[in-house]
Amino acid sequence: MSRGKPCPEQLDLSEGLLTAVTTSEATKCDGVDARNYGLVDGLPCAKEFFSKVVDVRPEQVILGGNSSLNMMYDFILRAMQFGVDGESTPWCKLDEVKFLCPVPGYDRHFAICECMGIKMINIPMHADGPDMDMVEKLVSSDASIKGIWCVPKYSNPQGVTYSDDVVRRFAALKPASKDFRIMWDNAYCIHDIDDHGESLLNILDEAEKAGNAEMPIMFSSTSKMSYPGSGIALLAASEKNIAYFKKQMFFQTIGPDKVNQLRHIRFFGDADGLTAHMKKHAKLLAPKFATVCDGLEKELAGTGIANWIRPHGGYFISLDVYPGCAKRVFELMKNAGVTMTEAGATFPYHKDPQDSNLRIAPSFPSVDDLRIATEILGLSVKIAAAEKLLGKF
Amino acid sequence: MSRGKPCPEQLDLSEGLLTAVTTSEATKCDGVDARNYGLVDGLPCAKEFFSKVVDVRPEQVILGGNSSLNMMYDFILRAMQFGVDGESTPWCKLDEVKFLCPVPGYDRHFAICECMGIKMINIPMHADGPDMDMVEKLVSSDASIKGIWCVPKYSNPQGVTYSDDVVRRFAALKPASKDFRIMWDNAYCIHDIDDHGESLLNILDEAEKAGNAEMPIMFSSTSKMSYPGSGIALLAASEKNIAYFKKQMFFQTIGPDKVNQLRHIRFFGDADGLTAHMKKHAKLLAPKFATVCDGLEKELAGTGIANWIRPHGGYFISLDVYPGCAKRVFELMKNAGVTMTEAGATFPYHKDPQDSNLRIAPSFPSVDDLRIATEILGLSVKIAAAEKLLGKF
Repeated sequence: MSRGKPCPEQLDLSEGLLTAVTTSEATKCDGVDARNYGLVDGLPCAKEFFSKVVDVRPEQVILGGNSSLNMMYDFILRAMQFGVDGESTPWCKLDEVKFLCPVPGYDRHFAICECMGIKMINIPMHADGPDMDMVEKLVSSDASIKGIWCVPKYSNPQGVTYSDDVVRRFAALKPASKDFRIMWDNAYCIHDIDDHGESLLNILDEAEKAGNAEMPIMFSSTSKMSYPGSGIALLAASEKNIAYFKKQMFFQTIGPDKVNQLRHIRFFGDADGLTAHMKKHAKLLAPKFATVCDGLEKELAGTGIANWIRPHGGYFISLDVYPGCAKRVFELMKNAGVTMTEAGATFPYHKDPQDSNLRIAPSFPSVDDLRIATEILGLSVKIAAAEKLLGKF
Repeated sequence: MSRGKPCPEQLDLSEGLLTAVTTSEATKCDGVDARNYGLVDGLPCAKEFFSKVVDVRPEQVILGGNSSLNMMYDFILRAMQFGVDGESTPWCKLDEVKFLCPVPGYDRHFAICECMGIKMINIPMHADGPDMDMVEKLVSSDASIKGIWCVPKYSNPQGVTYSDDVVRRFAALKPASKDFRIMWDNAYCIHDIDDHGESLLNILDEAEKAGNAEMPIMFSSTSKMSYPGSGIALLAASEKNIAYFKKQMFFQTIGPDKVNQLRHIRFFGDADGLTAHMKKHAKLLAPKFATVCDGLEKELAGTGIANWIRPHGGYFISLDVYPGCAKRVFELMKNAGVTMTEAGATFPYHKDPQDSNLRIAPSFPSVDDLRIATEILGLSVKIAAAEKLLGKF
């Protein structure tokens, strides 16, 4: 239950990917030989396909290797060294660079900031997205704030989708710093787990309308559509941004794996094919999420010592336990033989100020294992709270 | 003739790569599901296989994505931001960083330095490698010199393999700067084009013996074994270096495309399989190199206005024309409809001080096209020299 890792049965759904391109002839597309060097931003036909998945124009897209985390890291590292747009000061030359971090959030985002020495500021998450009053106030008053991390749909770990109002407020931000950027990690863009799929407003369109076209940088990938290790990552941004990124990328690579891009579009076929494919994932995931949510309900509903949201998509369930007890719950679970994401991991610097949040990742274990694990979890949450109330730690 | 790009017939040799892994079951190796996340340094079995190709130990290897250029760029960018070893000052914090560049050399190496603001110093190339007297003198006296670019086997563009003596002198360098690094781009490690294949001493072993284990960073890839766009890149270095790089890479990626690594080792099979495969490449390349070298011989031998070496491997022929004439030759060729690598491209800042060097890349065009192009080239070299001697430019 520790990582958002698809289970083998989910991976088996994409077996057809392995045989989607099997002949030299089949490696040709758009008059391009996908096997050879070139096309730093990816195959035109693949850009066309994946731009639709995240609802942007092909001209706004760069397709990368197998990791959107890699594209995010590269964006930040290049911002440090060269600046975000060829005009602004490189961040490494500034006295201080700060990022806003809606919490709880994704540990890998925070780790990037930490390794670069970017100072992180916690922003509370609400049911409709980050606390926008706080975001607006900070961003408009402090020019050292250069960015914010967002997982806008089925957020990691709460499963919250930002409301239209929140997206529009993001798009309309008036940053004190001209090179403020929104890191829009749209990792779960089409990752519904039931029939109540949520929809997310297009940040690139909204930002353009608000005169902030260059502000959002969107990321996504097929990691949880096809194979986590062998998928395709995507960056989407304004055409001006894309032109600058391509200029920078020229120095780094002669292009991504285009044969694998071809495999993906041939395997998915079209938008309907991809939708049908994602429904198969949902069918495998839904019972797992239900098992955990039902289990939490059964063990903890009405106790007043735990909160969680039943998500309609994504990969996680966020559980807030009695304040001061998350680490203890993690420990109790560990002693019982159940590995969870470490308490604190969902916060910058691994510091949950309330020591309350735990992230549950139900995708990998079996339903039976999840049932038992959730029972133990419920018990652990109650034991920890009781211990706390009794002043035992 | 402008780029070191394999021709379609060469790519067809690797058609079997496309069907080397076709079932979910076949994605398992070393108890690992190659489809899922993990293993930032690559699949153990693939590390085992490719470490032998470049004659190092598996523990000295990190397998990357499809581009060794990407691994080199990342190494330099991280050196700028974080320093090379977790102890030294990040290069971006220094007043000046310099690199030595044996010339003529690979334009993409020089481009990385240029974009980072690293000052480049030309080092003449001899028949056995770079001018080591000059390298030793500079490296031992100037602490702002942080690195040198090397293509030690079948060098780009001369096709020169560094002699054992040169490799040992590299390994025994006594740099003024503790964080001086040798960028050892072993791109053509097994890329013979005839039966007179040359051999290269192992720089990692030699450096270790000389007490300089951390100094060399080796790079290689399968770009010109399988597919240029869909191959596997490799970095090899001391185990101490590897441990540090893996720690840094944790922030960047959850791992490379391991299914593609499996495809490669299943397709090549074993060392003999890879050797046999490389012989097929050689069979396609040899007549092309012969056509160009014979053509140059026929047109220019004995004229005293041009020099070149007939290489035994690699992807290029380096042609030195009458001083001050390379740009004019490029122009004459262009007017005649033949695209060559731009004159100057083989030097830092695109500045060939002699305006004399041209790089010929025979792999992509057909033998017939190469015959005609070499004839035109011979003619252009003679016309340009005559014009120069007559004071026409």
